[in-house]
Amino acid sequence: MITTPDYRALLETAITEARQGLAEGGIPIGAALYHNDGRLLGCGHNRRIQEDDPSIHGETDAFRKAGRQRGYRNTIMVTTLAPCWYCSGLVRQFNIGTVVVGESVSFAGGIDWLRDNGVKVIDLNDAGCIEMMGRYIAENPDVWNEDIGE
Amino acid sequence: MITTPDYRALLETAITEARQGLAEGGIPIGAALYHNDGRLLGCGHNRRIQEDDPSIHGETDAFRKAGRQRGYRNTIMVTTLAPCWYCSGLVRQFNIGTVVVGESVSFAGGIDWLRDNGVKVIDLNDAGCIEMMGRYIAENPDVWNEDIGE
Repeated sequence: MITTPDYRALLETAITEARQGLAEGGIPIGAALYHNDGRLLGCGHNRRIQEDDPSIHGETDAFRKAGRQRGYRNTIMVTTLAPCWYCSGLVRQFNIGTVVVGESVSFAGGIDWLRDNGVKVIDLNDAGCIEMMGRYIAENPDVWNEDIGE
Repeated sequence: MITTPDYRALLETAITEARQGLAEGGIPIGAALYHNDGRLLGCGHNRRIQEDDPSIHGETDAFRKAGRQRGYRNTIMVTTLAPCWYCSGLVRQFNIGTVVVGESVSFAGGIDWLRDNGVKVIDLNDAGCIEMMGRYIAENPDVWNEDIGE
């Protein structure tokens, strides 16, 4: 029997990470890397501010926490916000099969490019994610622009 | 007076990093982020093996070591090997103005895509870089394929 993962349940892990980041004074973007079979491989959140590290986006943190994997075709990257080019490039290079985004209203990133390159992208258009990110961007435009290189 | 950076001199920093990685038992890819004015902002090398960390490519390590910068338009990412999609995405997202690659024979990565998106890409086609990477790939095909997600 083939079952479809409960993407909204997986998104909860990413949302928890995003909230943790916000509680730390950081940018509220969280992510989780799951295997298709439901196993959580790694999760993390943006820590630009907390660690003065511009390389730690939610997705790269989740990828890192998952350690060395021999193949990502059967994995799902779940993130509260559509991945930027940096994180989209990560998905494409490592052939991550599926990307689930909480929202792409605040930022669309590279999701069309990923779809064009064969990645399955599911946009949950989650109201809570939109509200959390929208509020952060409105209140912290400088940090947000720094995080996306603008 | 506008002077052109000595790209071969900048490449030496990346090569030194790659050799350091090789000496540590790692994949010999090094990188350095320079300001156009000649200042070295950060340098690093691939540490997948040394730290069991798949997120540390040469370019992402150099970017990280440079810390938080307010804009990258006037920076040069120098790397011994053409950047993969992950690192090409980094360059595009943060609007790094120039990319200098030691070679693109062993791996072409995303350099055409970067050029199409307005990044100045200089390929030095360096024989030493080609030899170093070619030898490593021939002797360690499994590690190399893991590093590029194949």
